[in-house]
Amino acid sequence: MNFADALHSAVEEKGNPCLVGLDPHLALMPREFAAAHDPRASRADKARAVEEFLGEILALAAEHVPAVKPQSAFFELLGPDGIAAWERLVARARANGLLVIGDVKRGDIGSTAAAYAEAYLGEQESACDAVTLNPYLGGDSLEPFLAAAKARGRGLFVLVRTSNPGSAEFQEQGNPRLAELVARSVDRWGEPLVGRSGWSSVGAVIGATHPGELARLRALLPRAPILIPGYGAQGGRARDVVAAFRGLHGALVNSSRAVLFPPRAHDRESWKDASARALREMVSEIRAVLGVTR
Amino acid sequence: MNFADALHSAVEEKGNPCLVGLDPHLALMPREFAAAHDPRASRADKARAVEEFLGEILALAAEHVPAVKPQSAFFELLGPDGIAAWERLVARARANGLLVIGDVKRGDIGSTAAAYAEAYLGEQESACDAVTLNPYLGGDSLEPFLAAAKARGRGLFVLVRTSNPGSAEFQEQGNPRLAELVARSVDRWGEPLVGRSGWSSVGAVIGATHPGELARLRALLPRAPILIPGYGAQGGRARDVVAAFRGLHGALVNSSRAVLFPPRAHDRESWKDASARALREMVSEIRAVLGVTR
Repeated sequence: MNFADALHSAVEEKGNPCLVGLDPHLALMPREFAAAHDPRASRADKARAVEEFLGEILALAAEHVPAVKPQSAFFELLGPDGIAAWERLVARARANGLLVIGDVKRGDIGSTAAAYAEAYLGEQESACDAVTLNPYLGGDSLEPFLAAAKARGRGLFVLVRTSNPGSAEFQEQGNPRLAELVARSVDRWGEPLVGRSGWSSVGAVIGATHPGELARLRALLPRAPILIPGYGAQGGRARDVVAAFRGLHGALVNSSRAVLFPPRAHDRESWKDASARALREMVSEIRAVLGVTR
Repeated sequence: MNFADALHSAVEEKGNPCLVGLDPHLALMPREFAAAHDPRASRADKARAVEEFLGEILALAAEHVPAVKPQSAFFELLGPDGIAAWERLVARARANGLLVIGDVKRGDIGSTAAAYAEAYLGEQESACDAVTLNPYLGGDSLEPFLAAAKARGRGLFVLVRTSNPGSAEFQEQGNPRLAELVARSVDRWGEPLVGRSGWSSVGAVIGATHPGELARLRALLPRAPILIPGYGAQGGRARDVVAAFRGLHGALVNSSRAVLFPPRAHDRESWKDASARALREMVSEIRAVLGVTR
């Protein structure tokens, strides 16, 4: 099945377009995971703590949301053990019915790009359903990923406008602006990958921290699912994301820290209860601004 | 020691500015490494073959050149075993006196960028001396890398103009062009990291496939070491790189496939002899165009 159609069905089924970012920042992990906070713990011990923590988060996510987005950097930091944990978590998430968007932001050329496409969108059980990509190197750098998307029903989310304060340094330069040029290219790359839902498997990453921008770029990208980071911890608010949507569809709103590492309501609240509460709050907030009543 | 100064010394010592790219493309590996060509071989077997092959290449490189550039994609493709091989090879290269430029082309924001900087430029034995980075997300995305460069004497090579045919799609747009804007930023980011050699630890990646471009961008980047890919297999020629240099210094010319996978001169030539010959040829070609006579 086309990735866009799979995403469409998953959003329908769960009744919300929320995405849980799996960013296992060791220093922020619940104190119950002692190895994450122990400077003498080995990378293997830390990777085990991450896997156990995110395994619980996955169970929670599978109940409530259509997709998760593991962030590669935090796994790479833990070396081979971290990568083994990444692979098992991706396979487990997919086995639990979640779509997995690997947040790898890769971008390279020729046979190197092909190796990345094979590593993250290959046939293996631990491959992702979709990945994030960096467009700086141009359209030919995306070809192996587009081929994998077509052959295996996978998806791509290309960085267009990121959520960080410094994103304007290059993305806002030129006339038309770079973000606009990339958006037009994303639309073109995605044309052969439009599914029955009317959405393409080639999506865009556009931060929620520039709300007017989301509407302007949406107009250039009528068929692209938009992955919206920056909700919650980075200051994006629920109503800022509305312009990206048509009903429940057309975008995914990501929250990482606000769900993984919420403040506990009181001393005896477990970290898991706090995360469950934070996730339910996010889902109802997003459903409310999208006017979902069922 | 400042990375730029370490690079300057290493180039002086070896008498050439050549860089061997470690891109272990399985399909191109010498037939003697059977696991690389066996579809039934496990990733662990393939990673072992890669490690053995590149171990020999490293010994060769350590004799002739100042630095190597492992390409992360080919190791990631082999999962945890590939990453373990990467770490051992990086440590071994550094123990052999080679500078290691990790070709990871990462680019991300905030705590994610910090995790990448720690993973590739941290204190561990398997960290690299320098990494390649993608500038699309803007200057704030480079801050953790700049901090690591400053604190630990490491280097950065920021993508400015890549060697692929599609690189013009975004890098050549705008007025000034995106590649020029990035070049000016690289110069600014590198200012606090200029060493005693007069070169900065913040360098640029500029392909040898656009020779006029190399001279134009060099003018905007008077202190940045330039990493030049695309020599050999990608069609860049020795004389195309001259504009980047001042004497022996100011740039590194990378060759991956032409050194790793050269055609054998005759049936009984070993792959190692063929690679040694290709590497010596590259070194003398580059020395000749740079007018090095000693």
